[in-house]
Amino acid sequence: MKKELKRSYIREILDAINEQTISFAGGLPDDSLFPLEQLKEASNKVFETSKCLQYSKSIGDDNLREKIAEIYTKYLSFPTTKDEILITSGSQQAFDIISKTFIDKSLFVQSPTYIGALGSFKILDKEIYEYKNLSSLKKSLEKNDCVYIMSDFSNPTTKSISAKKREDYAKVINEKKAFLIEDGAYSLLSFDGKLKIPLASKVKNSFHLGSFSKIVAPGLRVGWIRTSKENISKLLVAKESLDLHTSILSQMILNQYLEDNKLFEHIAIIRKEYEKKMKFMAKCLKRYLPSFTFKRPKGGMFIYGEFEEDSFALAKKALENNVAFVPAKVFFKDEKESNFARFNYTNSTFEEIERGIKIISSNINK
Amino acid sequence: MKKELKRSYIREILDAINEQTISFAGGLPDDSLFPLEQLKEASNKVFETSKCLQYSKSIGDDNLREKIAEIYTKYLSFPTTKDEILITSGSQQAFDIISKTFIDKSLFVQSPTYIGALGSFKILDKEIYEYKNLSSLKKSLEKNDCVYIMSDFSNPTTKSISAKKREDYAKVINEKKAFLIEDGAYSLLSFDGKLKIPLASKVKNSFHLGSFSKIVAPGLRVGWIRTSKENISKLLVAKESLDLHTSILSQMILNQYLEDNKLFEHIAIIRKEYEKKMKFMAKCLKRYLPSFTFKRPKGGMFIYGEFEEDSFALAKKALENNVAFVPAKVFFKDEKESNFARFNYTNSTFEEIERGIKIISSNINK
Repeated sequence: MKKELKRSYIREILDAINEQTISFAGGLPDDSLFPLEQLKEASNKVFETSKCLQYSKSIGDDNLREKIAEIYTKYLSFPTTKDEILITSGSQQAFDIISKTFIDKSLFVQSPTYIGALGSFKILDKEIYEYKNLSSLKKSLEKNDCVYIMSDFSNPTTKSISAKKREDYAKVINEKKAFLIEDGAYSLLSFDGKLKIPLASKVKNSFHLGSFSKIVAPGLRVGWIRTSKENISKLLVAKESLDLHTSILSQMILNQYLEDNKLFEHIAIIRKEYEKKMKFMAKCLKRYLPSFTFKRPKGGMFIYGEFEEDSFALAKKALENNVAFVPAKVFFKDEKESNFARFNYTNSTFEEIERGIKIISSNINK
Repeated sequence: MKKELKRSYIREILDAINEQTISFAGGLPDDSLFPLEQLKEASNKVFETSKCLQYSKSIGDDNLREKIAEIYTKYLSFPTTKDEILITSGSQQAFDIISKTFIDKSLFVQSPTYIGALGSFKILDKEIYEYKNLSSLKKSLEKNDCVYIMSDFSNPTTKSISAKKREDYAKVINEKKAFLIEDGAYSLLSFDGKLKIPLASKVKNSFHLGSFSKIVAPGLRVGWIRTSKENISKLLVAKESLDLHTSILSQMILNQYLEDNKLFEHIAIIRKEYEKKMKFMAKCLKRYLPSFTFKRPKGGMFIYGEFEEDSFALAKKALENNVAFVPAKVFFKDEKESNFARFNYTNSTFEEIERGIKIISSNINK
């Protein structure tokens, strides 16, 4: 038998959550902002023929790939054609596909980093190195190594890499002949609507990951990889061995939705609403948990900060009282002790945000 | 860089197929038999709330798991509860999930076998042994090894394992303390409607794979693993690292469809239609390709037989003339030479079946 693998603490929390739980844990979007009616309409159009129910191509739906390429070209100043887009079953699947195809051993991740990426790399027995900053990365990186980065509103730290710093990162990665996986899960959720040019556009061998989960709806499980046409033809082997292709129903519904609606008008609604919730949560944290220190994020879905005591113990106690948040421990490769914690503000009402933080506060002061 | 991986020839054919191609290649169901209207209705009901668009549990939708458990209990004489069902993104994903969690090295497969399973095991660097029959399996099998079997209408051979022989297989696997992956993709497509009790029900440590792809629609990408509750809790680590969860929209649409319709009445329509097409293709093969020898299958979606010359060369020539079928070579681990070939009869009209086989015949006689 193989070695026992551990489930992600976040998924365990998500599974444990019930109707009574106030959850600041997962990266769940506000479901009241889903374009439910528009997706229902799109679905009805798609169900006019049986194409949405038959097997389809591993690379993904041509029309949808075309529209994703347009997002890069028009909004991210990263010229892209549909041949450079591979559809995945959520952005999560991209980690497995790229790892199997291109990562031989060494993988460099920011520290702390996204737990889903860690999980995916760990299960494939990849050697993972956590780097603190660019100069430590520069020292260790070697040819054919892979660097995993979230450049915008990084999960969990909420930090972004400046345009200037992106040049420096690109230089290091290119000089070392390493390659880049850039995760753009939150890139379009910038509160002020300004978007940065992806780091991937400056790196010779790069994979940029995107997803409809945070900007339209996660339940459809549609993400993508943006890379060279040559890389995609190699990635297809892994993609087809995983699930043959991503749900064509989901792909066609999204394509129809994008055809009939203006995606960036929808995103504008989301980011304004999320900024309001972030500000409210920040106010509540300052008022009820003054010892928790944090910087307000400029986009994304989380507040990240530090308690004066072990956040793992606090999170466990909070969960007993039906409030969930994530202790930073889980965002490190070897789960090191930490007082940091991550709070999601998008999946709770204003009332729940206040009530939840009050409960945590009363736990601490017990 | 990692070793280059080869794409599956079948997926390449499927990608190469255009409007002009007559395809006997893939395992594509007849799309005119999809319950399109019923699934559209189900979809409209599901879109009444935003639940179908939010993140959901890795293990899958409770209601759907309940209904799948019922199929085992009521129709396959294999008592099952929902705790023994894990939803996967197509049956294909099950190979990756089980391999990562339970298969350390050695895996025994029937020879020839399903190419999608081979692909999935190969990419994870599993050591694959092809076995010819039960006695050769008995000689080689060791503790903790895994056996992969399609007991019903096996792909590509179309053969089934008798009830008596299932007892013998179970005895060997149990005695050796090995475990079983039984792939039930075609089990419900028995022409006479009679269903055999799964081999998995007799094996102590077993994984039975099922899918809605052949009995409802493949585009939704919903399959499942039936195993012990303890095994499922271990499989969840791999499942969540792959795609967090399977499209909840697809899951809920299927659940609603099963709620409002009688699945086994729908299956009865499919299997009668497929039997008609199989008989017609068999007639055409005998008439236009008398040198191709085969036994008529009793279920499933394929005719498997032998040419008098190399089937790979024939298949290439046929594809140039816009007719696709699969040479058996690809169903062997090391792609050994073979005169055998697999024809799918479910995805073509009667007219196309006759025309396609005539074209192959004229190729041979050139």
